[in-house]
Amino acid sequence: MAESFEDRYGPWAFVAGASMGIGRAFAHGAASRGLNVLMLARGAELLDATAREVAEQHGVQTRTLAADLASPEIGDLVAAASDDLEIGLFVYNAAIAPHGQFVDVALEHQLRSVAVNCATPVMLCNLLAGKMAVRGRGGIALISSLGALAGAVNFGTYNAGKAFQWILAETLWAELGPRGVDVTSMLVGATSGANYGYFQATLDTELCRNGDTDDPLERARWRLMNPATPAEVAEQLYRQLGDGPVCYTNASDALVGEATLRMARRDAVHMWEALQRTSTRAPEKQAL
Amino acid sequence: MAESFEDRYGPWAFVAGASMGIGRAFAHGAASRGLNVLMLARGAELLDATAREVAEQHGVQTRTLAADLASPEIGDLVAAASDDLEIGLFVYNAAIAPHGQFVDVALEHQLRSVAVNCATPVMLCNLLAGKMAVRGRGGIALISSLGALAGAVNFGTYNAGKAFQWILAETLWAELGPRGVDVTSMLVGATSGANYGYFQATLDTELCRNGDTDDPLERARWRLMNPATPAEVAEQLYRQLGDGPVCYTNASDALVGEATLRMARRDAVHMWEALQRTSTRAPEKQAL
Repeated sequence: MAESFEDRYGPWAFVAGASMGIGRAFAHGAASRGLNVLMLARGAELLDATAREVAEQHGVQTRTLAADLASPEIGDLVAAASDDLEIGLFVYNAAIAPHGQFVDVALEHQLRSVAVNCATPVMLCNLLAGKMAVRGRGGIALISSLGALAGAVNFGTYNAGKAFQWILAETLWAELGPRGVDVTSMLVGATSGANYGYFQATLDTELCRNGDTDDPLERARWRLMNPATPAEVAEQLYRQLGDGPVCYTNASDALVGEATLRMARRDAVHMWEALQRTSTRAPEKQAL
Repeated sequence: MAESFEDRYGPWAFVAGASMGIGRAFAHGAASRGLNVLMLARGAELLDATAREVAEQHGVQTRTLAADLASPEIGDLVAAASDDLEIGLFVYNAAIAPHGQFVDVALEHQLRSVAVNCATPVMLCNLLAGKMAVRGRGGIALISSLGALAGAVNFGTYNAGKAFQWILAETLWAELGPRGVDVTSMLVGATSGANYGYFQATLDTELCRNGDTDDPLERARWRLMNPATPAEVAEQLYRQLGDGPVCYTNASDALVGEATLRMARRDAVHMWEALQRTSTRAPEKQAL
């Protein structure tokens, strides 16, 4: 009989960045598959509400940790909060995306982005991956972005940090796969939910009408008008967790991502710049 | 008349990681093109000797700063050391490459690698790029590695950090190019010099004999036996500084890099794993 999701990745999932958007969906998705969930986010109130919702809806245990993923002490905080738990699934879903030309963004925000996108996933993988390897089972998902695959404008440290997570996940996939631990990085595309409404409201919708094309820019623009739901993103992550070093939410994102990697680099960067100009104003807070 | 290198990138270059290997060659190359050079490295003695060599050989001014690129204060240290200089060229050539399976490398080393490969280039670009943009001229090179293009084994945070620099450079290229500042990331391949001898000494040379092939693994193996010299790497960087968001040292590296990006990701990772197995023992300290 095939090993169940719970046998393979239970009994506890740890979702970092869990209170809303796709993080909330990752928590629900793990709970719906029978796992208890340790949920981390910065704001205690929303986090606790989401955790109650997850526990009640799926009949699992939840535990919350209200903490800042930019903190240099985050590894110790998570260790203390999870010392008595066997964490078989780790989903790292946090990001800070300072928006603006690199030279205009305050250094403090850039460095917070580096902490959250680079240092903290290293700390938390260090805490959790070794134990999974010793057990010979488990799963790790570092949630990245199509934006990892090329620089563009206005999201310098964000895109670079997402590239860090993508390539780190590939190494973890190569090293831990033979030891029974599944690792992947999902290169997430346009998703509906928190912080996304503003960007959608300013789309030049005429540019976004063609979903029946292999042109990656047109397909990426179509995705802006047709964002995936958080539930779809979570469903696809859990379906593809054991399938390889990277995965995509749907065929459109795969087309865009694979085309980006095949292009000459200057063409890739120019395509992603053009995609940002699909909005009549640049998005204020939300990376693509 | 074409603008000279000195007009475009002078009067001072700043080379971070300048006392040996390709960093020393970047300092020599900038000085041979008429620039004064601010040189940074950790150890004062070797740094001072290299700086004397550069000054005497090319008749330029040099200034040294012995400092640790992993320090959170590195931005302030560089600011203090360069306050009275107009830096028109910035070459970031530092890296820490903790070797070993991710779960076996001490967290402290991993975080030093994140600091040097991610946080510090952000700090130093923050310090220098805005001034170049205001002047409407200048050059920035973030020296990355072919290892940025895929995860493999044994160099988890190194490869991820090199990916960070690659993608950050692409954004800086897109944002600063229209403002007159050239940005590139060189994806460096096998290079002779410090720390490389051990790896070469353990090569299975039978695997490295075929340089006349379009097979990227065979070509990458051939490069291990035919490393570029630091002088060649520096020469190519300065030739290609204005040509695009990424550049390569030679046609073999371009073939390997571009093939890596065209592959399915699992194939790319497996190719880079196979390349590491070209050595009869894994390299102790030197990333590819």
